[in-house]
Amino acid sequence: MTDAIDVLRSHRSIRRFKPDPVPEEDLLRAVEAGQQAATSSNIQGYSAIRVKDPAVRAALVPLTGGQAKVASSPLFLAICGDTRRHRLLAAREGTDYQPNLEGFMLAVIDATLFAQNMVIAFESMGYGTCYIGGLREDLPAVHKVLRTPEGVWPLFGLCVGRPDQDPERRPRLKTDAVLFDDRYPEDEDILAAIDDYDRVMHDWYRSNGIDTPDWSARIRQHFEEKRRTSNAAWYLGAGASFE
Amino acid sequence: MTDAIDVLRSHRSIRRFKPDPVPEEDLLRAVEAGQQAATSSNIQGYSAIRVKDPAVRAALVPLTGGQAKVASSPLFLAICGDTRRHRLLAAREGTDYQPNLEGFMLAVIDATLFAQNMVIAFESMGYGTCYIGGLREDLPAVHKVLRTPEGVWPLFGLCVGRPDQDPERRPRLKTDAVLFDDRYPEDEDILAAIDDYDRVMHDWYRSNGIDTPDWSARIRQHFEEKRRTSNAAWYLGAGASFE
Repeated sequence: MTDAIDVLRSHRSIRRFKPDPVPEEDLLRAVEAGQQAATSSNIQGYSAIRVKDPAVRAALVPLTGGQAKVASSPLFLAICGDTRRHRLLAAREGTDYQPNLEGFMLAVIDATLFAQNMVIAFESMGYGTCYIGGLREDLPAVHKVLRTPEGVWPLFGLCVGRPDQDPERRPRLKTDAVLFDDRYPEDEDILAAIDDYDRVMHDWYRSNGIDTPDWSARIRQHFEEKRRTSNAAWYLGAGASFE
Repeated sequence: MTDAIDVLRSHRSIRRFKPDPVPEEDLLRAVEAGQQAATSSNIQGYSAIRVKDPAVRAALVPLTGGQAKVASSPLFLAICGDTRRHRLLAAREGTDYQPNLEGFMLAVIDATLFAQNMVIAFESMGYGTCYIGGLREDLPAVHKVLRTPEGVWPLFGLCVGRPDQDPERRPRLKTDAVLFDDRYPEDEDILAAIDDYDRVMHDWYRSNGIDTPDWSARIRQHFEEKRRTSNAAWYLGAGASFE
């Protein structure tokens, strides 16, 4: 038995795994736990593709920015926002199916709830996990490699396996920098909380031997240019809009 | 101690609560557990606004499609995708900040991971929760009521309290209808799985006294028209694009 809050609080991403395979029953246990997560109006707008084929795994490595663990982790799932079921139902009955931003968001949120429950289930069974947001680097190419049909959007990957490392938990912003009562704070209070966090992370990077700019500088670099710009047109398919 | 997988598997949304307040320490425990969830490149693109002001709660009820529990639940959080910190850092240093679809998705996914960890933490402490996706019905109006600044997007609400009902868990699609090996299934296999689920849900609706069309008919109705169309332009602000 693994206490739920202990599992949540001890999360760190694991990026190096032992070679032990993940038994089928553990995977199914995690997927069932994932499916029990909330889903908007019970649409269940998600699916997971377990990539077993080594050639497909290898093809995904350069498409995720060169993350070798996508090929080497004992289990790799591509987590998809999935509107395929909804589309097929409309097509079968000849009713309209109207994709838009809200429909897209439903699938993104549903898939993320599903995935996070899986992560917690895996971690409670002693596995380590790592989300691979890099799967969105070039989605049209990923789509070809995974042969996903229209309306199925790989959103991120998930590597799973027995941990072969024991990294320190990374500090987060203070709780009062993300939880507010009634009123969103003034800009200067937000910036003061960031300056405080910069100091915490500065020390943490140093004590973990990580040579990197401060958190705030990393954030500015991250958003300085539009990223992954080939995805938007692809998400909804030709002729669709984000209205 | 509450076993993690038991918590995940026993989830149902709770829509009726006892009046007992949620003590501050339980809320903080949940928020800290939420913050420990994975976050893309540690951007922590989320925040939660606890709405205590009864007038604001009351104003949100019609904006969420008339959900009275938004006013009456012991605790109500507005979960936000939050890019405000990132924007303020760029503004302070005079560097570019380039919002686009990918930046939006990072915040949506981050906020959802944060929220789901909170849900599991609350449930492990014996609380019931209900996501309020209806908060997106008219986001420009919600934004005014919550007085959120540019770059803070309320994505959904979360009602929390001691359960005053004990609803049955709703069956989900079979696991092999959402977990695939290497290859996304053919259309006819997807439709067969849906027909199977329709029969399960038909019986479930009847045994729970719910008079409703079958799941597949509900899904078709759900996506027959574009919904919540006023949100897209608002999400990224004037002049921004989803590129």
